[in-house]
Amino acid sequence: MEISKQEIIEAHERIINYVHHTPVLTSDTINRKTEAEIFFKCENFQKVGAFKFRGASNAVISLTSEEKESGVATHSSGNHAQALALAAANRNIPAYIVMPENSPQVKIDAVRDYGAHITFCKPTLQAREETLEAVIKETGAIFIHPYNNYRIIAGQATAAKELIEKTGDLDYILVPVGGGGLLSGTALANFYFNPKGRVLAGEPENADDAERSFKAGKIIPSVDPNTIADGLKTSLGDKTFPIIQQYVENILTVSEDEILEAMRFIWERMKMIIEPSSAVPVAVLFKNKTLFVGKKMGIIISGGNVDLTQKFW
Amino acid sequence: MEISKQEIIEAHERIINYVHHTPVLTSDTINRKTEAEIFFKCENFQKVGAFKFRGASNAVISLTSEEKESGVATHSSGNHAQALALAAANRNIPAYIVMPENSPQVKIDAVRDYGAHITFCKPTLQAREETLEAVIKETGAIFIHPYNNYRIIAGQATAAKELIEKTGDLDYILVPVGGGGLLSGTALANFYFNPKGRVLAGEPENADDAERSFKAGKIIPSVDPNTIADGLKTSLGDKTFPIIQQYVENILTVSEDEILEAMRFIWERMKMIIEPSSAVPVAVLFKNKTLFVGKKMGIIISGGNVDLTQKFW
Repeated sequence: MEISKQEIIEAHERIINYVHHTPVLTSDTINRKTEAEIFFKCENFQKVGAFKFRGASNAVISLTSEEKESGVATHSSGNHAQALALAAANRNIPAYIVMPENSPQVKIDAVRDYGAHITFCKPTLQAREETLEAVIKETGAIFIHPYNNYRIIAGQATAAKELIEKTGDLDYILVPVGGGGLLSGTALANFYFNPKGRVLAGEPENADDAERSFKAGKIIPSVDPNTIADGLKTSLGDKTFPIIQQYVENILTVSEDEILEAMRFIWERMKMIIEPSSAVPVAVLFKNKTLFVGKKMGIIISGGNVDLTQKFW
Repeated sequence: MEISKQEIIEAHERIINYVHHTPVLTSDTINRKTEAEIFFKCENFQKVGAFKFRGASNAVISLTSEEKESGVATHSSGNHAQALALAAANRNIPAYIVMPENSPQVKIDAVRDYGAHITFCKPTLQAREETLEAVIKETGAIFIHPYNNYRIIAGQATAAKELIEKTGDLDYILVPVGGGGLLSGTALANFYFNPKGRVLAGEPENADDAERSFKAGKIIPSVDPNTIADGLKTSLGDKTFPIIQQYVENILTVSEDEILEAMRFIWERMKMIIEPSSAVPVAVLFKNKTLFVGKKMGIIISGGNVDLTQKFW
């Protein structure tokens, strides 16, 4: 077992004073529509607007005193960059973030506001990795991978742990899958704290590498996928995949239209802003209604970071 | 005293199994920006998307068995129509809603989905009142005014009661003011449950009849005001105004630009959809920062019903 029950409990204790204990919301309209009982764990209301802050906080607080002196580093244009920058700022340790030079200004500003050192690079994976390597060589900072890291996974597991503590036993927990940090953490939390429940993942059809990997029994990397769910473009890692293989029931895919429709439904009916990636498990729920009739289910709303000037509908 | 402490407690007990116990959220970003400690009571997550469901539920459940048989009636194109329709449906009693014929289709559909009887009328106050009178004459239904009604006011008071129960003592509670149902209820809840605290209201400059009434010591009706905060166009009533005069500290106004800026700030940073009316007290907070430095404050987010196809920025 890569991550024990005790490690998830300790991760939760470690981060509990730094993260928001996010609310669990329900919607009569959605319960009627699905003929099921759905509980939404709202990590869009988490600090930095995403569950990523849980894992980053656990990884940063877990560092040894020596490691803390050198600081932490990562490459990311997304939620992990902000999460790591804030987690490091909370503990007064340096953070070095490599960002593609075409990152949205609002994301660059957010990372800078948290006091992180930013190094820009060309917008290719190769440039990101090479630049990060150079930054680490120069600073001695510890690389914190956005998902392929057991401390990150244990941190992400705390969202499902809180959800289960709030709702009691659940028949299913549904989450989106990109690199698999949230999914593997959720699957472990379910195994330990909701052992009769099953975990399902939602994935865009246009970025279905996790579903194909799950079926093939080996990691099939995603190749430049094109989906509005921009948080789910990454490939599984060698630490997340085995956990997913062992503890996840299935991975179901949805179309871009289904994602947008589910997103709009949540904005309109639940009055909360969710990013496209978070609409993916909701779309899976709506698409596979017959699977879930009469069930008690949790859905982790992974984040709420969207550009409000973007026209979705 | 028009509404006793006991009546608010009883209103709360009456509705508690019908309404959402909405979450109280905080934002580090807003606390840093304002140098204050702000607690948002999120009635945008209330059923029908607004605090109005509290008052409507209290009014409907308070009816005598005889009154329930004839049902309830109101005229409204807004949140009160939906709130009354659902509150009546929950108790299996008829609801008759007079709606202007130019009401948005989405609102008409919502009221109809709750099983209410809709009568359309010309979009003038006179036509609304005359049509309502005819409906009441025909059906014998009880008119439930959207705000000028003590049971409505007692129901709206429960939002502040829950807020105070969650946060403990607050220096200030800030709410928007239209007809004064939420404001008078909040002022009474503050008087009874948070007696050291003060209540302030926010109002659009473009619909500043409550501020002018407050200063003049008599109700000055609003005349066809033009503001994006469409829930705040109504005039005070003879039941809400005396409570406001006695228990409210002050009414502060904000411009249309300030409302839109505050609304966008909440959408972007707190990932929740609030309607323009709800942004008004937030704009008051941002505009009068120096008044509130170091204070512990509650803001009631009154609702989240917006047309997502509308372009706000």
